[in-house]
Amino acid sequence: MALYGGIESGGTKFVCATGTGPNDLDRTTFPTTTPEETIGRAIEFFRSRPPVSSIGIASFGPLDLDPRSALYGHITSTPKAGWRNTDIAGAVGRALGVPVSIDTDVNAAALAEARWGAAQSLADVVYLTVGTGIGGGALVGGRLLHGLLHPEMGHMRVPHDHVADPYRGICPFHGDCLEGLASGPAIEQRWGSRAERLAAEHPAWRLEARYLAAGVVNVICTLSPCRVIMGGGVMEQTHLFPMIREEVCAALNGYVALPEIVRPLLGKDTGVLGAIALGCFARD
Amino acid sequence: MALYGGIESGGTKFVCATGTGPNDLDRTTFPTTTPEETIGRAIEFFRSRPPVSSIGIASFGPLDLDPRSALYGHITSTPKAGWRNTDIAGAVGRALGVPVSIDTDVNAAALAEARWGAAQSLADVVYLTVGTGIGGGALVGGRLLHGLLHPEMGHMRVPHDHVADPYRGICPFHGDCLEGLASGPAIEQRWGSRAERLAAEHPAWRLEARYLAAGVVNVICTLSPCRVIMGGGVMEQTHLFPMIREEVCAALNGYVALPEIVRPLLGKDTGVLGAIALGCFARD
Repeated sequence: MALYGGIESGGTKFVCATGTGPNDLDRTTFPTTTPEETIGRAIEFFRSRPPVSSIGIASFGPLDLDPRSALYGHITSTPKAGWRNTDIAGAVGRALGVPVSIDTDVNAAALAEARWGAAQSLADVVYLTVGTGIGGGALVGGRLLHGLLHPEMGHMRVPHDHVADPYRGICPFHGDCLEGLASGPAIEQRWGSRAERLAAEHPAWRLEARYLAAGVVNVICTLSPCRVIMGGGVMEQTHLFPMIREEVCAALNGYVALPEIVRPLLGKDTGVLGAIALGCFARD
Repeated sequence: MALYGGIESGGTKFVCATGTGPNDLDRTTFPTTTPEETIGRAIEFFRSRPPVSSIGIASFGPLDLDPRSALYGHITSTPKAGWRNTDIAGAVGRALGVPVSIDTDVNAAALAEARWGAAQSLADVVYLTVGTGIGGGALVGGRLLHGLLHPEMGHMRVPHDHVADPYRGICPFHGDCLEGLASGPAIEQRWGSRAERLAAEHPAWRLEARYLAAGVVNVICTLSPCRVIMGGGVMEQTHLFPMIREEVCAALNGYVALPEIVRPLLGKDTGVLGAIALGCFARD
């Protein structure tokens, strides 16, 4: 049975693993520093392990995912210091001589959950992460969604009730886009307290559920997924799930069939398992 | 060369045609009455013409498009009198003994424009129609988007500036969803005048461009299309195009690359050509 490699390339940490799925991961974690040092450590990890037939990279972005582009596999216009225009897929592939597949962290998470987690055997799945930022990935007809670039679901516009919520939003690009209104830092700035310190009865959560529900409604209206998986730090407040389901149901008002809205099943491993799953699809 | 059949099944008229593309259509148009009579006339049309190798149907919906469903090819929960649960694809296929493919009118329009019109050779295309209602279809990675049902893009939620625009919206399900705020009937009810009678300088158009731009922004953030084609009666006010482009550009604020926002090239034939294009994909 082939062994696959996976790299979860995050803004604060890298997770590298070999394995074939959730039950046989051999993994290591280290902080994200410079591209040279961090990618170097990832390469060392794979050199010290049994050979893998391919490697998947689940990365923060934006990424160039157009196979016809000269910059395919690069992290492109990221604000993260030192990482702009980093050829992460090329560096890994050249050093290790194996096929490499790269995609966004959220697309990879959607793939992992469809393969081993909360959306098994489903072909139309959206994975939303709500944490420091808000992002979304999707499987459409069994294939990862790319298009011109890749989705940037956190930056969609949703209704903002300026009377009930005069907060202007934290997104430096758009102010009160979904991420600007409902990400972890938005909650903290609006209420003056970190999200996890706000009691389940705090009005912050009803407002949060309403904004996230508007985002989910828009995802349903544009992508028509069979299941929406919601992960990330903010969604660890699991009392949000019934509130979001209620708000989505009320907002759609019976007009379309509702997808299930569920937690990820793979927990902290979603990212690196997404990378492993991408590895299975890697080509030379 | 194979000859294909197409049926544009609309709420007010049916268009039937045989042909292979935009230059050799042999077509007829008749009003939509009862399902029996209207589908009967479509079947008669094809019986009176040279045999086609398959037929595509581009229909109003909602439709059941799940090939595993017992109701595949049915118009399902439409409010249109008499048409609820109509097995249009089955009736046509059984009567004519040819493979039939069915999809939404907007998905078919996206396909026609990708094949012969404003999005040739592109694999990621969104077609939005803005008229009596607002709807959207999409090609994603070269394949038509379906999912749990099919997209219902007109019903997404967008910011509603209640101060500048106290109008409540016309959608019977959602009030001020995109369709509720920006469809032709919404313009008419808000301003007391049919859209085509409002001068290009009327403030109605800036407001309309802003709402439609919010819809396009959300389509970009979720689907990342290479091109967005906007058709339908309201978009015949072509002064809307530069205004929408300007508003989309301002709203996204340089965060992601912008797709082109263009008019359909196939004009009144987009619908029936979409049906012909679907016919090329029909299977037994």
